[in-house]
Amino acid sequence: MPSLFKSSLIWVLSFSFLQYGSAQQSTNTPVANAKTYIGYTTESSRVEQDWEQKFRAIPEPDRLRENMRRLSAYPHHVGSAYDKDNAEWMLAQFKSWGFDAQIENFYVLFPTPKERLLELVAPTRYRAKLQEPPVAGDSTSGQTAQQLPTYNAYSADGDVTGPLVYVNYGMRDDYEQLERMNISVKGAIVIARYGAGWRGIKPKVAYEHGAIGCIIYSDPADDGYIPGDVFPKGAYRPKEGVQRGSVEDTFYPGDPLTPGVGATKDAKRLQISESQVIQKIPVLPISYEDAQPLLAAMGGEVVPEKWAGALPITYHMGPGPAKVHLVMKSNWDIKPLYDVIARIPGSTYSDEWVIRGNHHDAWVNGADDPISGAASVVEEGRALGELLKQGWKPKRTIIYCAWDGEEPGLLGSTEWVETHLQELRQHAVMYVNSDSNGRGYWRASGDHRLERFINDVARDVPDPEKPNLSVWQRARFQRLARAANSDDRGDLRHSNELRIGALGDGSDYAPFLDHAGVAALNIGFGGEGGGGVYHSIYDDFYWYTHFADTKFVYERALAQLAGMSVMRMADADLIPLSFGDAADTVGRYVKEVETLLKTEQDKQREVNLELDEGVYDATSDPEHPTAAPKKEEVAPFINFAPLENGSAALKHSSEHFERALAKAQQQGGSAYGNSAVQQLNQKLLEAERGFLDEQGLPERPWFKNQIYAPGAYTGYGVKTLPAVRESIEQKKWSQAEQGAQTIGRVLEHEAQLIEDAARQLESLEAGK
Amino acid sequence: MPSLFKSSLIWVLSFSFLQYGSAQQSTNTPVANAKTYIGYTTESSRVEQDWEQKFRAIPEPDRLRENMRRLSAYPHHVGSAYDKDNAEWMLAQFKSWGFDAQIENFYVLFPTPKERLLELVAPTRYRAKLQEPPVAGDSTSGQTAQQLPTYNAYSADGDVTGPLVYVNYGMRDDYEQLERMNISVKGAIVIARYGAGWRGIKPKVAYEHGAIGCIIYSDPADDGYIPGDVFPKGAYRPKEGVQRGSVEDTFYPGDPLTPGVGATKDAKRLQISESQVIQKIPVLPISYEDAQPLLAAMGGEVVPEKWAGALPITYHMGPGPAKVHLVMKSNWDIKPLYDVIARIPGSTYSDEWVIRGNHHDAWVNGADDPISGAASVVEEGRALGELLKQGWKPKRTIIYCAWDGEEPGLLGSTEWVETHLQELRQHAVMYVNSDSNGRGYWRASGDHRLERFINDVARDVPDPEKPNLSVWQRARFQRLARAANSDDRGDLRHSNELRIGALGDGSDYAPFLDHAGVAALNIGFGGEGGGGVYHSIYDDFYWYTHFADTKFVYERALAQLAGMSVMRMADADLIPLSFGDAADTVGRYVKEVETLLKTEQDKQREVNLELDEGVYDATSDPEHPTAAPKKEEVAPFINFAPLENGSAALKHSSEHFERALAKAQQQGGSAYGNSAVQQLNQKLLEAERGFLDEQGLPERPWFKNQIYAPGAYTGYGVKTLPAVRESIEQKKWSQAEQGAQTIGRVLEHEAQLIEDAARQLESLEAGK
Repeated sequence: MPSLFKSSLIWVLSFSFLQYGSAQQSTNTPVANAKTYIGYTTESSRVEQDWEQKFRAIPEPDRLRENMRRLSAYPHHVGSAYDKDNAEWMLAQFKSWGFDAQIENFYVLFPTPKERLLELVAPTRYRAKLQEPPVAGDSTSGQTAQQLPTYNAYSADGDVTGPLVYVNYGMRDDYEQLERMNISVKGAIVIARYGAGWRGIKPKVAYEHGAIGCIIYSDPADDGYIPGDVFPKGAYRPKEGVQRGSVEDTFYPGDPLTPGVGATKDAKRLQISESQVIQKIPVLPISYEDAQPLLAAMGGEVVPEKWAGALPITYHMGPGPAKVHLVMKSNWDIKPLYDVIARIPGSTYSDEWVIRGNHHDAWVNGADDPISGAASVVEEGRALGELLKQGWKPKRTIIYCAWDGEEPGLLGSTEWVETHLQELRQHAVMYVNSDSNGRGYWRASGDHRLERFINDVARDVPDPEKPNLSVWQRARFQRLARAANSDDRGDLRHSNELRIGALGDGSDYAPFLDHAGVAALNIGFGGEGGGGVYHSIYDDFYWYTHFADTKFVYERALAQLAGMSVMRMADADLIPLSFGDAADTVGRYVKEVETLLKTEQDKQREVNLELDEGVYDATSDPEHPTAAPKKEEVAPFINFAPLENGSAALKHSSEHFERALAKAQQQGGSAYGNSAVQQLNQKLLEAERGFLDEQGLPERPWFKNQIYAPGAYTGYGVKTLPAVRESIEQKKWSQAEQGAQTIGRVLEHEAQLIEDAARQLESLEAGK
Repeated sequence: MPSLFKSSLIWVLSFSFLQYGSAQQSTNTPVANAKTYIGYTTESSRVEQDWEQKFRAIPEPDRLRENMRRLSAYPHHVGSAYDKDNAEWMLAQFKSWGFDAQIENFYVLFPTPKERLLELVAPTRYRAKLQEPPVAGDSTSGQTAQQLPTYNAYSADGDVTGPLVYVNYGMRDDYEQLERMNISVKGAIVIARYGAGWRGIKPKVAYEHGAIGCIIYSDPADDGYIPGDVFPKGAYRPKEGVQRGSVEDTFYPGDPLTPGVGATKDAKRLQISESQVIQKIPVLPISYEDAQPLLAAMGGEVVPEKWAGALPITYHMGPGPAKVHLVMKSNWDIKPLYDVIARIPGSTYSDEWVIRGNHHDAWVNGADDPISGAASVVEEGRALGELLKQGWKPKRTIIYCAWDGEEPGLLGSTEWVETHLQELRQHAVMYVNSDSNGRGYWRASGDHRLERFINDVARDVPDPEKPNLSVWQRARFQRLARAANSDDRGDLRHSNELRIGALGDGSDYAPFLDHAGVAALNIGFGGEGGGGVYHSIYDDFYWYTHFADTKFVYERALAQLAGMSVMRMADADLIPLSFGDAADTVGRYVKEVETLLKTEQDKQREVNLELDEGVYDATSDPEHPTAAPKKEEVAPFINFAPLENGSAALKHSSEHFERALAKAQQQGGSAYGNSAVQQLNQKLLEAERGFLDEQGLPERPWFKNQIYAPGAYTGYGVKTLPAVRESIEQKKWSQAEQGAQTIGRVLEHEAQLIEDAARQLESLEAGK
């Protein structure tokens, strides 16, 4: 890769002055300089640059604003009238711009509250309000009749009474601390604060430890008055604000009743009682106004220093004397989903699909989540429609998607992926996702074989606030400013690319990446501003237009970035995958899991030694006694050789491919004119699917990708090389060893596919 | 040193079972095993062990409790009736136990409030209460007439009105953050929270940046409801609680009007206006109840994440719109001090003094601060008196001191040290200080030449809560439990000693160590429990007996530890200084200052590079703009060779001395019977003074010690090798280079003295 570019800094600076010298960035688009895009011939690159320049000028802040106003005008959760209305409006829009569009329906289990009650019954009494009041001036906050009540979808039904135990964020390491403090949650109702991991982990882990109920509240330290003024004075969570959200277990996403198959009308369904993804105990989210009397009534030890939130009370662990009565019952209905699917057929490689999506359903009005992303999808559609009118013909088929049912559990995207799995495996080149979008810095995560590709596109999008810089340059500067140490800064200064993160869970990319093996990206902007209206009635047009991307210029940047990503991939002669980046990153992951095992070993060895020495007994305060951790066998050494061999093979063949690619690029991509390029692209698609293993992960067979998966105990957070990493974390040593063999095999196979592709590319070069 | 002991762990464990097998620790004292104390002959060590065993059995929890009750029964600040009463009572006690005791008076400037007013005048109005109410059940909290109002002594007189600016802890790095946020305190009144450094730094730095007033409040995050339940339910600061305290500048301690000389009746005094240690702007401490309306009325940017406290508000930076009116005026009176000085003349080396002290004055009742330490001093006196009756005759002169006027600025100890400076330089072997004492772990800081000595004493004190362990062993286990990494744990496991910290400021050791060059120690117990009544009316007998060392067993442990330290030093044949520990520690300090310079250089180089790259401009949020730091010259390289040479010389001669000492100890200390040992002890005393340089520190000539000093901008916090370290921190490069030469010279001279001592010890050995 370094051979492809000059020293990045010099290159970037000169490039930026050429391109973005003027502040009128929306019309003053990049000059077509000598650069040839990767996967393009000199000529096709020039043509592409012209079309992208035209495209970049089309998206308009006012239209994006109007899209948002329209799509967030009423509550539009799954099953609501306005959810369907939005889908039909988008369908009409896409059709009007020349797309071949339709709505695909699915029928999914979507529980809504039938009964909710939370009361403190001892030592004092308090009945939780469970209600978000309208705010003067914010008209949609008053649409009370259409709003979903505050709840966590896929909670168990239950009516329980028990003492409260405070469990901090309720993640697994919090329970280690509880154990050290001799506190059990058996028979108790836990109260956890939102944060530190996905909410669905909290009731799951609570249940695993014997709790009978779970309350989740938003502490003001995390997204309330501590980070900023609260709504409507500021952007942060007011005292009555509640975070709704799904707690569907991560065993698989999508409809709980149709794992692995599309939830079409006649699909075979599980009984509700058979589903493995519904929580086992009742769960209810509450506001900090409702949480304070509960927390203030608790006794027991004072919480550890880092467990205290920002309510003006002393936080205690319990159990009790605070005792609560929790009732949660749902209507367990099947509801229709409305996925909007809009196609532009490809002119040359119509069997190769470039897919772009964002969900349209929300918990309530959802101006930020998801409409700030969905508004861009609509505006991108309009802009591409404009290009079609001007004569643009994408080589590959483009599919624009507006998903329904993301909030309850990626329902719309998962059911679509499951329904079209074989087609996707065969045809899909890339899936580009977005979701909430805001003011600030370019962000991208995804399959590392798209790292160079998305870096290249980001270099061509001007930053709205710093018009002399591309969004790529500004993101690079932010990373420099935030780098932890000089090593990280050196890495940034000497690299041509910004590393992208790996994807876990949290939006509609997951079924593409994890189940279908489609290289996926999640992109957007953010990091300036902030707020605390997530999944509340206050995430609405008023909030967004007062506190977020109020000028809709980062909305325009998203439309530019995402639309150009779609175009650049659709029009490429050669699919521009960067195997070298992926091989480098996989090599880092291998080192990480090796270090993880060593860390586990060292940690347990130290615990055992300190137990022998008597450290824990000596340091237990008799007035606040703590329990020593258990003596356990130190983890055995694991055979990482298959991983190392697989990683080395991947590196070797990737280097071969990158050399061949560099040579082809140096010659202006003339080789790509060869008609055999289509066969090579098919080989590349085969290699793209190479991270899959049909057996899936050891305990989660739905997840087929062996490189990336959401963590079983983190949810949002990714676990790379999951069959090894999670097995080590869960102390399943033989499963970890087995995982190393599986991943090693996958990597060797992927290496072989890349080696084949490299040879094909070389012979293309030779035969041109 | 390693040659002197077996592997520490084995040694310690076997030793502990020998000594502390029984839980009746107060009577079951150590068996005189084969060990010979350092500096003792086999015979004198056996005798000493017998006496110490007798001593250890004497202190009684009930008497310590009674001492505390008596000494904290009424407010007893400088100039109060009960301050004098306490002194006279202690005088009578010491006399009754056979001490040659007297009260030494000094006459010091001690301002008390004449007028205090704090009101919010815009945008709303609030008048601060500035009052701590009595608490039902806590009788002394109602002694309102005798209590000093809440104030900061040595505030400037002033009547100012200005906008508020929140400055976090108000330390120097906080002002760097303010600068980055484009916020000036010029003409403003700053509001800082207590913590992060000594309170006197806050108005000083505020003044240096142009502020006209300073308010200091106790945030509940730091010692209020967040760390624990508040008084009287729990130990922490109630909403009305205020931390009084001195803000006398650290340019010198002691009476502001008599720097460098004793404040005797007829001493020559400065005019108040001439004194350099009185603050330049008015300062007032307030409660969090009084702070909340002020902070809530502020506007401007929201504070950075780490700056927020735990009040239920959004913290803003200001300036304004909150505007306050602050009036602070004092009665600038001269008040008498009553230092109680009680002697036991030495039988053999009466010209060598072992000094033990704790202050007796408090801000109000001060059960914890200082009576938990002073109660021990009194009980130690009784126990030593018992030994005298039984025939014990210490070889060296012992001086017990109960200081007055520590709270306003180490007044009693400093004036005494200044008055007796020449005698102390000639005669003082060691000063052992204590102050507040509590439940938990043994703690010691001090001159590193006493490191081995105090470790040895701590090995002979049983832990009250873990009677199978010595306080030394338990402290070691705590350090293991808290060690940051395996290197630190390895260091602990392979060392015979626990490293002791260096001393900054905060109690009466400072004039001994920093001005007179006497090797000083500060010792005590703590770390279990906690609280927030510091310098308030709630630090009283009720609080201490409900929330602190309620059984007075750590009070007894302090009496044992401190009394045995005094005895062990007083009875030694050879003064047991550990030059090896000091040389090792000084070597570490040299590396630290070298690293500090490199860190400064790297930091500025990176800042300058990022300025050139444009990182700061690129990452300034236009809606919340930040200022780039200034471009500055990178620090020059400094000649550290004098430091390195001095350190190497110190190491070399210390190793020589340690070899000679080890040899002497292996032979049962028989050499110490030689009459020439007295000359050697004189040489050791000369070496003890070797850290002094009469010129003092570059900008603080009163501070003579070149190894240890309180930081000019930290107060409590120590700065080791201060002439170099602080000069680098303050970017005074040539002063740093000059400092390296001065310290190098001091170290070379000290090395020579130690070399002489080593030779004398060898010839003692040869001539025995």
